[in-house]
Amino acid sequence: MTDGDFSLACPAPAGGDDTVQMAHGGGGRAMERLLDTIIRPAFDNPHLARRHDGAVLDLAGPVAFTTDSYVVKPLVFPGGDIGTLAVNGTVNDLAMCGARAAHLSVGLILEEGLPLDTLRRVVASMRSAADAAGVTLVTGDTKVVDHGKADGLFVNTAGLGPVVSAAPIGPDAVRAGDAVILSGDIGRHGIAVMAAREGFGFETVIESDCAPVVDPVMALIEAGVAVHCLRDLTRGGLASAAVEIGEAAGVSIALDEASIPVREDVNAACEILGLDPLHVANEGRFVAFVAEADAERAIDILRRFAVSAGAVRIGTVGGGAAGEVTCRGALGVDRIVDMLSGEQLPRIC
Amino acid sequence: MTDGDFSLACPAPAGGDDTVQMAHGGGGRAMERLLDTIIRPAFDNPHLARRHDGAVLDLAGPVAFTTDSYVVKPLVFPGGDIGTLAVNGTVNDLAMCGARAAHLSVGLILEEGLPLDTLRRVVASMRSAADAAGVTLVTGDTKVVDHGKADGLFVNTAGLGPVVSAAPIGPDAVRAGDAVILSGDIGRHGIAVMAAREGFGFETVIESDCAPVVDPVMALIEAGVAVHCLRDLTRGGLASAAVEIGEAAGVSIALDEASIPVREDVNAACEILGLDPLHVANEGRFVAFVAEADAERAIDILRRFAVSAGAVRIGTVGGGAAGEVTCRGALGVDRIVDMLSGEQLPRIC
Repeated sequence: MTDGDFSLACPAPAGGDDTVQMAHGGGGRAMERLLDTIIRPAFDNPHLARRHDGAVLDLAGPVAFTTDSYVVKPLVFPGGDIGTLAVNGTVNDLAMCGARAAHLSVGLILEEGLPLDTLRRVVASMRSAADAAGVTLVTGDTKVVDHGKADGLFVNTAGLGPVVSAAPIGPDAVRAGDAVILSGDIGRHGIAVMAAREGFGFETVIESDCAPVVDPVMALIEAGVAVHCLRDLTRGGLASAAVEIGEAAGVSIALDEASIPVREDVNAACEILGLDPLHVANEGRFVAFVAEADAERAIDILRRFAVSAGAVRIGTVGGGAAGEVTCRGALGVDRIVDMLSGEQLPRIC
Repeated sequence: MTDGDFSLACPAPAGGDDTVQMAHGGGGRAMERLLDTIIRPAFDNPHLARRHDGAVLDLAGPVAFTTDSYVVKPLVFPGGDIGTLAVNGTVNDLAMCGARAAHLSVGLILEEGLPLDTLRRVVASMRSAADAAGVTLVTGDTKVVDHGKADGLFVNTAGLGPVVSAAPIGPDAVRAGDAVILSGDIGRHGIAVMAAREGFGFETVIESDCAPVVDPVMALIEAGVAVHCLRDLTRGGLASAAVEIGEAAGVSIALDEASIPVREDVNAACEILGLDPLHVANEGRFVAFVAEADAERAIDILRRFAVSAGAVRIGTVGGGAAGEVTCRGALGVDRIVDMLSGEQLPRIC
């Protein structure tokens, strides 16, 4: 606790306010009270109860390790909040390494004046998301910065999990002829956050797709499907993921536009806003590059899980120029798909 | 890279400015360029070169896992910067668990408008500190927030390292009669940051003590010293560390003020500012609670390392009330030492 670690000590009175105060970051009694009344009860587990500088875990064999910071604006959006996102995002990054998330760390940066109710909601969301994904929040840290020096609340999570896949999963393993499978409809997270931030009054409330995808991914691996590469479709969307993997793997990728599921309301919102759904962020969607022979079986397995019930094949890896991603439209004409050059929507995650 | 992971893809032109732009956080070409020109070259290693969502590590046995966010202000201070701090702080937290840091993750939150030269300096510092401490920065993430929504740059590091100590190290293991050993003079980090922030013109420039303490800690453990508890003296200083450990261990602690080394210039600065050196933060100092029989040997071992050449015994664990820390002054009178109730200096780390 000398450095705000959750895993450390206690009682005693704070400022008595219902917002975060600078004293909550000072390493003294006020910080102890914040940790003891809000944060430790939410994350309660034996690792934190030891009140030490870190958690000691028993690990064996290959372990995946990843981190992400979350700066989404607004903090709460239809279908989730920054806490849900911070847990699921890191759980999903580990899944993309063929690993089942087991342990997460949490770093909170709080702005002075943040309502404690917001903090309570976010840590409760983190705990629920962690329980749903089967992970434990084993170690953490809290810092407070002056009013106007952050935007409410930033969260960092780092995650650890044993690698379940025997074969390496990554762009290196992608081969010409691989099937490209998408786990469900795209674009909901990006549109949900954009609508919440800008106050767009679309006819329907579009909810974020934010969810853990670890179960269907583990099912693919455990069934022996030859999974060559996985990538979750966050910032930059399907387009950026495809171009990055194509470039890193030295292959081309041919997509079929008609096969890519986009909900009607999401599509309408994209048309109004002038966005290509291929560039819109998701938080519960991924692409799997699998051996052609396993493609049908992979889709059948994915469809058994609610989070990937809409899985479909959307394309094939080719032997063309590295990073050349094409998308065949309704009229049979191929268009080139590229990453965005700048940004579509800042602070989507 | 769809989510800004360093461990992912590439070339192409950005905004052409010499400051961070929102587009650097958008998951597109501009972000790729930032990662490829500044961040990946600094941290260059095979894990990042795989350009995947995380790193896969081979681990066996007990592993310590910890995280801290760093929000120090100013970003650069005599003796270090936020990058030095972010690496050494996490390396030291692992050492406090009896573990030798091996792998770090890095989460960067950049404010729009941050000079790229500042970012270059900080990532170079991180690399140097990582090399000095023998750790690799294996996975990372970059986010950008709007101008005015952060304070230049925040850093999160999470760290992993094998636990070297066979016996558990932590407050639970502290016993009445244990010797309390301090690794060197206290108060320099806090005074250095305060002076840099407020522009105090002290006669001498006081440099931060920021440094990795892993080598002396490992030497204690490898020599078979009965190390019961370790704690680095960051926010809240020696006083908070002693009170926390006393409370968690259910013991009292008696310190001897005359034995606690405080440099003359630090002491003078504390007097001017009305601070108790026991409350001032450090970033390269720790206390070790060791069995009485091993106390002399522990001090001899610590003194072999530059970072702990000033190691001294400062007190003894007693069987009094849990968390009661007393400090015997020059006149032989005991005073009660407590944590600060609020904050002494915000954003010290």
